Amino acid sequence: MLIPRIYLALQNGRVGHGTKVPRNINMERLRNGYLFSEICRRELEHTQKYPHAKLIKLGIGDTTEPIPDIITSAMAEHAHALSTIRGYRGYGAEQGNMELRNAIAQTFYRDMGIKANEVFVSDGAQCDISRIQMLLGSNVTVAVQDPSFPAYMDSSVIIGQSGNFKDETGKYENILYMNCGPESNFFPDLSNTPRTDIIFLCSPNNPTGHAASRQQLEQLVEFAKANGSIIIHDSAYAAYITDESPRSIFEIPGGREVAIEISSFSKFAGFTGVRLGWTVVPEELLYSNGFPVIKDYNRIVCTCFNGASSIAQAGGLACLSSDGYLAMNAVLDYYKENAKIIIDTFTSLGLKVYGGKNAPYMWVHFPGLRSWDVFNEILEKTHIITVPGTGFGPGGEGYIRVSAFGHRESVIEASRRLKNLLK
Amino acid sequence: MLIPRIYLALQNGRVGHGTKVPRNINMERLRNGYLFSEICRRELEHTQKYPHAKLIKLGIGDTTEPIPDIITSAMAEHAHALSTIRGYRGYGAEQGNMELRNAIAQTFYRDMGIKANEVFVSDGAQCDISRIQMLLGSNVTVAVQDPSFPAYMDSSVIIGQSGNFKDETGKYENILYMNCGPESNFFPDLSNTPRTDIIFLCSPNNPTGHAASRQQLEQLVEFAKANGSIIIHDSAYAAYITDESPRSIFEIPGGREVAIEISSFSKFAGFTGVRLGWTVVPEELLYSNGFPVIKDYNRIVCTCFNGASSIAQAGGLACLSSDGYLAMNAVLDYYKENAKIIIDTFTSLGLKVYGGKNAPYMWVHFPGLRSWDVFNEILEKTHIITVPGTGFGPGGEGYIRVSAFGHRESVIEASRRLKNLLK
Repeated sequence: MLIPRIYLALQNGRVGHGTKVPRNINMERLRNGYLFSEICRRELEHTQKYPHAKLIKLGIGDTTEPIPDIITSAMAEHAHALSTIRGYRGYGAEQGNMELRNAIAQTFYRDMGIKANEVFVSDGAQCDISRIQMLLGSNVTVAVQDPSFPAYMDSSVIIGQSGNFKDETGKYENILYMNCGPESNFFPDLSNTPRTDIIFLCSPNNPTGHAASRQQLEQLVEFAKANGSIIIHDSAYAAYITDESPRSIFEIPGGREVAIEISSFSKFAGFTGVRLGWTVVPEELLYSNGFPVIKDYNRIVCTCFNGASSIAQAGGLACLSSDGYLAMNAVLDYYKENAKIIIDTFTSLGLKVYGGKNAPYMWVHFPGLRSWDVFNEILEKTHIITVPGTGFGPGGEGYIRVSAFGHRESVIEASRRLKNLLK
Repeated sequence: MLIPRIYLALQNGRVGHGTKVPRNINMERLRNGYLFSEICRRELEHTQKYPHAKLIKLGIGDTTEPIPDIITSAMAEHAHALSTIRGYRGYGAEQGNMELRNAIAQTFYRDMGIKANEVFVSDGAQCDISRIQMLLGSNVTVAVQDPSFPAYMDSSVIIGQSGNFKDETGKYENILYMNCGPESNFFPDLSNTPRTDIIFLCSPNNPTGHAASRQQLEQLVEFAKANGSIIIHDSAYAAYITDESPRSIFEIPGGREVAIEISSFSKFAGFTGVRLGWTVVPEELLYSNGFPVIKDYNRIVCTCFNGASSIAQAGGLACLSSDGYLAMNAVLDYYKENAKIIIDTFTSLGLKVYGGKNAPYMWVHFPGLRSWDVFNEILEKTHIITVPGTGFGPGGEGYIRVSAFGHRESVIEASRRLKNLLK
């Protein structure tokens, strides 16, 4: 209760009036400082300290390359049409335009039995994670990968699924952290994983860059089925897969009965600012009382969301046209080439680098060092922003995440600086 | 527990595998059938029955007139720029572009002391309502107007602030319904309103069309201050105000210490499909422990949202330019003229019509009749879609809501049909 006392003091000073409304205990539980805000803060400090340094950002996974014209033209055309009587449209369906839902089902889920009405178009995967948490409520047990993208955990805390954060362990109570280090091939060791209601799994993984193999996903579906669990599978990076790893949990037999899949146009089509994603909820997925999850999710979407921007949806549809799809894949190849340069850089320095082959992230190991120290050292000496592994959970200690998003010349320059620093 | 049994039967038939994950009790509490889905269902039935009838939709408040070219061109230009190296942008700030936040503060909150950093740009007011519910959590008491827009109530139920729905009363337990009928001038009678933590107030009101007077809002701010409550003020229809009624709760002295305001470009700029809104959380607003609400809201926005579409934000900025603002007001005048025609129609038929002067909604009283019966009768006889008042709570019984959104010729035709039916 230290923070409240500080704020009460402020209140007696200049700040306003205290209401009698209790602060949400779940918000109070949230550990201070969202990872990427903290990185931004340090970045700002650094640029103030070195105003003339040319900063290279390989931190937050933000796309940098232009969107192919065929896609932006479709969005521009849709925008222009809104100023005509024939082309104006108001509210669309909360679940998304049926044409786009169809195109997503056809493009990403062909032969997996996913129907258009099971695809819910959204403004992005991070937003869908929160809507899924509202769907599930506080009375479920949850497992997350360690390390993992912070939004799963933070939204679990916000909705009330967790206990308090423990500084000793670096973990929230009542959340199961499934260790996903190299010793278990970056996948949970299911032989010693207790049952939870919900299992969040991100593949290809953010931050480790690991794409789960078919065998790993088969084991997970089997595990979920045996335990009556629901898998929330985040496939936002599936477009980066270059080998035979499954791009969807629904490639696995039985997946439809145990999994929800979240995905996104952000990293696939450079739509980080345009905002477009989707979630698939199969009709076969049922709660313990037999009620279909899709019905509740539809209700959440209709109550808590009002559809993705119609302009973004027009862009999404253009991405899935044959020419749009080809054009986007050229951009993906560009980032994949970046990834190769970064992998080679760290490898040539004798460091172990994971990921990067099926994902735009490299997970670089600095055994015995602390992530934030590595982050600081790299920033201080090379003016390169990365992400400290512990930002993704205690299992990320000793690692940094390096992103493949960037202009080629920046990536080459980053490679040069890193080689000079570390050789 | 009837529904589960039905679904278990289905499960034994063709549908999949039951997990052991409990259905969220809050979702189970939600009354079946979201209002506007139910209306859509009846509309579909009607068009199947009368395939040649020309349906006129004055139901769901959906904008119909094109967006001025100056605004759509700004969006198209932004979209095109995304295909250039200079113009491409990835993630924006979760809270919105600072230029837009500034323009909102300047345009709508001049002289009210609202700063740009207190403005959180979003993808719409309905979505913000849910984010505010995630902020508040389940451990607060809530009051809503009766009648009121269903999203406040439904999101309260989803987050766990309510008890069960009681068919006898037409109300959820543990939620305070503040009667807002003509006898209290469509505002809560605060002299007999018990304290709650949260008070949802929509002004100009959906569905009654009533804009709270300065005196009413002053009393409400006073009431909230005395009780230590937080007002969630929804001003999505403020642009329709034609008299001296306040357009923001922050026009009222002390408002900054007790209120959050939600607003939207949807009905102001025809952005129902484009998706853009905002929420203002003043720095002075504190929880009972003195912690600033804005800090928690910022965390919610960063964790559960990823910013409004950058293209929509470019459009919002164009709306707030001087030419854009003038152009939009011409569209608003068009809808206001529609409202006059509808008011005159029902008035000429001897019915009492409320609203329509400061809002795009007319609230028409049919004393002694049931709303759904009136809805059905009007639909059957005139092929006009309205909204039955009870869809907004038990206080809406005997009323229908008629929207002013529509092409002029449709509104004139609706007027003709209604006069023929009811005269």
